[in-house]
Amino acid sequence: MQINVIKIGGNIIDHEEKLASFLRDFSKLQGPKILIHGGGKIATKLAEQLGIKTTMVEGRRITDEPMRDVVTMVYGGLVNKKIVAALQGNNCNAIGLTGADAQVIIAKKRPVKTIDYGFVGDIEKVNDTFILSLINQNITPIFAPLTFDPQGFMLNTNADTQASAVATALASHADVNLVYCFEKKGVLSNPEDDDSVISKLVPETYEKYKSEGVIYEGMIPKLDNAFAAVRAGVKNVIICQAEQLHEAIEQGQAGTYISLK
Amino acid sequence: MQINVIKIGGNIIDHEEKLASFLRDFSKLQGPKILIHGGGKIATKLAEQLGIKTTMVEGRRITDEPMRDVVTMVYGGLVNKKIVAALQGNNCNAIGLTGADAQVIIAKKRPVKTIDYGFVGDIEKVNDTFILSLINQNITPIFAPLTFDPQGFMLNTNADTQASAVATALASHADVNLVYCFEKKGVLSNPEDDDSVISKLVPETYEKYKSEGVIYEGMIPKLDNAFAAVRAGVKNVIICQAEQLHEAIEQGQAGTYISLK
Repeated sequence: MQINVIKIGGNIIDHEEKLASFLRDFSKLQGPKILIHGGGKIATKLAEQLGIKTTMVEGRRITDEPMRDVVTMVYGGLVNKKIVAALQGNNCNAIGLTGADAQVIIAKKRPVKTIDYGFVGDIEKVNDTFILSLINQNITPIFAPLTFDPQGFMLNTNADTQASAVATALASHADVNLVYCFEKKGVLSNPEDDDSVISKLVPETYEKYKSEGVIYEGMIPKLDNAFAAVRAGVKNVIICQAEQLHEAIEQGQAGTYISLK
Repeated sequence: MQINVIKIGGNIIDHEEKLASFLRDFSKLQGPKILIHGGGKIATKLAEQLGIKTTMVEGRRITDEPMRDVVTMVYGGLVNKKIVAALQGNNCNAIGLTGADAQVIIAKKRPVKTIDYGFVGDIEKVNDTFILSLINQNITPIFAPLTFDPQGFMLNTNADTQASAVATALASHADVNLVYCFEKKGVLSNPEDDDSVISKLVPETYEKYKSEGVIYEGMIPKLDNAFAAVRAGVKNVIICQAEQLHEAIEQGQAGTYISLK
């Protein structure tokens, strides 16, 4: 069995037409598939309207109790259910999930070290059995970037991390492609040239590009995570543009493939 | 198999301690169970904060597009996920659902006659197969009062009606108790005396109480619905106080039982 685990970020969520177009493409993917969505700017906008201050540290949202209510509403309610309903309209039998639903992603509140992230969860366990039971019923799980602590409360979790955890948990059951859709066409060999996509990265070429300074800064932790996923058994990690989902999944036609060999 | 389908209204949702206490009681119910929750005042309050006007006609919320976003956020996100997480904390393996999830409740936007209710759904079909697959995995479905149109959009649906539709759909598979938790201890034979609970109503006694004026006004449509559910195969409909859930389900110890004989 092959399972495609796709992550879309806030830049798509925030753009009504791009989102609709992506969801049509996603619906057409053959075989079992899973979507993990980010939050986008709606949470920040709603928080602002409610007089709740948004604090970001290194791109991560500080989630105090009022902010947790906001992200639970926006990610788990508005965004997730709009996506689910739209997919149903495209004949894709979707189900919206947060980690709390059927205990599908159990997490632990991040311990406070130098920064108190608040109600942010580090993933401890993914319930692969439940995900597979949905897939076997031809149901497509749609994850909001929310997990939960078994003591009984919701936690905010980064969607990239969640996608990687879900893909890894399924890797022992299926050939898993983990696809990160982002704004660029892939990892670029020349940051100035949007078409200079590196079609395949294996550990050796990754090291080479890093030592040459071709891959640098923010791409490094992203790619370290991608390699961690393939090392944990995910067959391919693909980094591509949302618009090129189909081309990317047909190996080599678009995006950057991260693989061990 | 016996399935308890429980509906709780906004008066419990709005009261943090009552809700926590109810969820503890609900968790302890033996055997398969389903919860349908109302919305409470949170949606109205959030709408007000966002400058969206709430219009109610005969107790029903007019749901234009901004209001639909509000109820999707509040009912499908905040309230539903808080309940799910709290139940998980009580060792009840809950899953939150709207009608759109796995197409579990398909509805149609109510046609405009004298009143335009907006995005309000009249239920057309309940996916009993999916509900039973959850129950067979010991998972407890928690329904937000939201349905969807298969064209791809969310609809707002009354929680009482939704509870009745879910119970009826399961009636051919199991002995279903449909329990409406409300603020009174049951149907009263004397509205001035909160302890004058009619323990059992069959069609004959219902007609008698109506003709005597003991049962009147708002209780009549509620009870007509209750009798419709039992006629459609639901074993018992019980109207009781949330605090007396356990006593009520153990027949005759609390609340009013609606049954055909």
